Amino acid sequence: MDSKCQAYFTELLGIVKTVGDLQSTASLLEWDQETYMPKGAMDSRSRQVSTLSSLAHEIFIRDRTGELLEMLSGTDGESVGFQESLIRVTQRDFSRARKLSPELVGCIAETTSKAKSTWIHAYNENDFGNFADDLEKIVDLCLQKAEAIGYEEHPYDALLDEYEPDMTSAQVTSLFEDLRASLIPMVQAIQESSSPKHEYLHLSYDGDIQWDFGMEILRDIGFDFQRGRQDMSAHPFSTSFSVNDVRITTRVNERNLVSGLFSSLHEAGHGMYEQGIDAELDGTLLAQGTSLGIHESQSRLWENQVGRSFPFWTCYYRDLQQRFKSQLGNVSLNDFYHSINRVHPSPVRVDADEVTYNLHIMLRFEIEMRLIEQKLSVRELPELWMDTMQDYLGIQPENDTQGVLQDIHWALGAIGYFPTYAIGNLMSAQIFSCAQNAIPDLHDQIAMGKFHPLRQWLQVNIFQWGRKMSATQILERLTGGGITASPWLEYIRKKYSVIYGTLP
Amino acid sequence: MDSKCQAYFTELLGIVKTVGDLQSTASLLEWDQETYMPKGAMDSRSRQVSTLSSLAHEIFIRDRTGELLEMLSGTDGESVGFQESLIRVTQRDFSRARKLSPELVGCIAETTSKAKSTWIHAYNENDFGNFADDLEKIVDLCLQKAEAIGYEEHPYDALLDEYEPDMTSAQVTSLFEDLRASLIPMVQAIQESSSPKHEYLHLSYDGDIQWDFGMEILRDIGFDFQRGRQDMSAHPFSTSFSVNDVRITTRVNERNLVSGLFSSLHEAGHGMYEQGIDAELDGTLLAQGTSLGIHESQSRLWENQVGRSFPFWTCYYRDLQQRFKSQLGNVSLNDFYHSINRVHPSPVRVDADEVTYNLHIMLRFEIEMRLIEQKLSVRELPELWMDTMQDYLGIQPENDTQGVLQDIHWALGAIGYFPTYAIGNLMSAQIFSCAQNAIPDLHDQIAMGKFHPLRQWLQVNIFQWGRKMSATQILERLTGGGITASPWLEYIRKKYSVIYGTLP
Repeated sequence: MDSKCQAYFTELLGIVKTVGDLQSTASLLEWDQETYMPKGAMDSRSRQVSTLSSLAHEIFIRDRTGELLEMLSGTDGESVGFQESLIRVTQRDFSRARKLSPELVGCIAETTSKAKSTWIHAYNENDFGNFADDLEKIVDLCLQKAEAIGYEEHPYDALLDEYEPDMTSAQVTSLFEDLRASLIPMVQAIQESSSPKHEYLHLSYDGDIQWDFGMEILRDIGFDFQRGRQDMSAHPFSTSFSVNDVRITTRVNERNLVSGLFSSLHEAGHGMYEQGIDAELDGTLLAQGTSLGIHESQSRLWENQVGRSFPFWTCYYRDLQQRFKSQLGNVSLNDFYHSINRVHPSPVRVDADEVTYNLHIMLRFEIEMRLIEQKLSVRELPELWMDTMQDYLGIQPENDTQGVLQDIHWALGAIGYFPTYAIGNLMSAQIFSCAQNAIPDLHDQIAMGKFHPLRQWLQVNIFQWGRKMSATQILERLTGGGITASPWLEYIRKKYSVIYGTLP
Repeated sequence: MDSKCQAYFTELLGIVKTVGDLQSTASLLEWDQETYMPKGAMDSRSRQVSTLSSLAHEIFIRDRTGELLEMLSGTDGESVGFQESLIRVTQRDFSRARKLSPELVGCIAETTSKAKSTWIHAYNENDFGNFADDLEKIVDLCLQKAEAIGYEEHPYDALLDEYEPDMTSAQVTSLFEDLRASLIPMVQAIQESSSPKHEYLHLSYDGDIQWDFGMEILRDIGFDFQRGRQDMSAHPFSTSFSVNDVRITTRVNERNLVSGLFSSLHEAGHGMYEQGIDAELDGTLLAQGTSLGIHESQSRLWENQVGRSFPFWTCYYRDLQQRFKSQLGNVSLNDFYHSINRVHPSPVRVDADEVTYNLHIMLRFEIEMRLIEQKLSVRELPELWMDTMQDYLGIQPENDTQGVLQDIHWALGAIGYFPTYAIGNLMSAQIFSCAQNAIPDLHDQIAMGKFHPLRQWLQVNIFQWGRKMSATQILERLTGGGITASPWLEYIRKKYSVIYGTLP
């Protein structure tokens, strides 16, 4: 880069860091809202978040940003150098942001802000009709957004691209078809086998003891408490304000021994990814997970491939048993392992087991596609939901609160987001399988409570890159190909055959 | 206001609220830094605070703000109407802010940022020499700042004006002379009397029990936990992000029964002031305490006039005794009251009792005046400190850490700030005396744990106004005059004569 370009780059970096600081601070406002903020502060907090987000957007999309990008353009599209990557990623975000008119952005913010309240009310009152008008508007706004951003094949692609760059709805459709074809017979076979005992997981388990156990595990797996912390919130989440300040939250249910722990492991998976991003990228657009799918692959890997594995409990079960002698004294390691891996079709996604989870996502993806294709009216949603649940999982929710109303995502305008959960599941198996190849005694390491080799491998191959490498590049580099369902299906088939007998 | 002016006002309000949101959010960054932030995040946090503060400053001092103020000027200087007050206060802040060149602002930020680290090191190592260079620069920058802002009589006035508008160094000097003349003989007389027992305050007192006791008292006095909260931090402070989100912190010392509680009462006094500001002012420059003196009067009123009073402990002592039976079982209410009001000259300001506290402030004010008058070199400071402590309090600190290095204020560039602590003490007595006139059975109310009448009186006469009324206006309205030392001296003489025998 010549000295003139260097000056342009320095100016661009200044803009990007200012925008980054505003966005990180908006995230702190949101973290505080969910953890410590007094209830009475809600209105002023909403205004503060909105002010910071708007200001970040306004500063980012100024003409000057475009001019600088123009003068710096022409760099290598695959380079992982700091400057080249930052220019490429900034160009991508800038171009998306500029395509949305301030009117459309304002309209989306206003509609989703209202829809969020309407949804909470509809959810609590089991009243889909009350939410339908807002959802219709949101679908319409998402269509407008897709048109503004542009797409080659399908308007859904423009929406999906926000969360999973490089991926198209055609790819997702094909991937999900493969998955469904294998998964439905597998779930049916499991249903026909005898279910492991699990009632003892729902005795009374002291919350403080659960918390302490979870915190020790987080330390063991390598979540860095010098550069992060865990707090309580109603809905677990992870967020970061810098690579040196990553916050995760969990909840503790005294009537469910493992739900809090698996939430902690899940969020710590997200958190360790953020903590592992190269410090050089801090404060820029590069210091983020490269796609929601890759992000979710990390949370699911620690939650499922590690946390729900036999080796993991070989290491930790005796300790857990000591902490809860009266409840677990007579439960063997093997029984415990089976109970935490019980497959049981249920209506609510966030309660779903590892096997049926992806079916919940496919259902949502199909509905979103039909809505965006305008082949389905919002009013027909509850019925279609019930029917598809029956087809996929053999059950029907008792009401809309347990059905079509269960997730807040659509109220927030997030159409195109759900597929990334399933994509993350699939990627987690691809990535874990590569890690196993690289660390042949990985399971033995886990059984000894040694997580450093795995974390170090993830650090080198995924964490450090931030957005310098795309999801496609990361997968290509590790597997020589793209996303596929077979490693996940193989993992599931192998694991659950042990518990339920041979699966199709 | 005609419709044109109304449009200007709306635009001004938009600017002011954006600036307010940025400042409030910077305060959240700072609150989080002192309470929950992981240690490793310090560097990125400093950058974020700096980005938000600079952006707030930059947006505020834009030409457009000046143009709008110009077009809206000519409103009544004493009005307490929302629009008139906002224009007046914004004009004041804008005019101060514009007088400081970006170069000077940058230079102050950079120097104090460095000085803060140097001070921490010097404080820990008892090495004033290490801090002297930075302090010299800070004095020089404060002089430049005073010249840029301008003053009528004394450069110190320009600095004091930032914290205590309308007050001059001549007034402070005269006030402090009166105070000193009465206070020094009083302290000497107390020194010659026998000191109350107090050793039992330093037995071991469980921290959780202390915390719970303090929380109950905060609820009783009326700190609103729907719109605020208390947390732990190394140094107690209060801050607010909106009138509906006021945060206070305290610390608990297991070897000191009352220091945590009095910190809580002190910060709750600040906090209730912020919570009581009229909600209409929220998010604007009006939603702040009107001066640091008035602010401190509220914290000291709840800490001392209420919290260290006999009626207060008539209400709470039995409860405290129940919580700490083994430590307090044999201590009478009267003895306890005497022990928490023990007067004992000591080198450290934050540990000072109510009587000697103001002498610590006078010492600092004299030194600041001489520094600003360039009659004292920074190198001569430690010696002057020792000598003046001897004159005022009859003691000398063992070292500079307990002496000239004890406070962080100068490292932060806050010359002109200290007098507001003593001003607050004096005002607290003036204000409490007015409250007593208005509520004749105030002491009986407090003895019954009824704080509502006092809080309501403060709400009506002080809290609600925010910056709509100046400190001068508030005092004038309540007392018919300005700040004087006599109500405070009278309060001290009366209270401490009961404990130590008749005082001069």
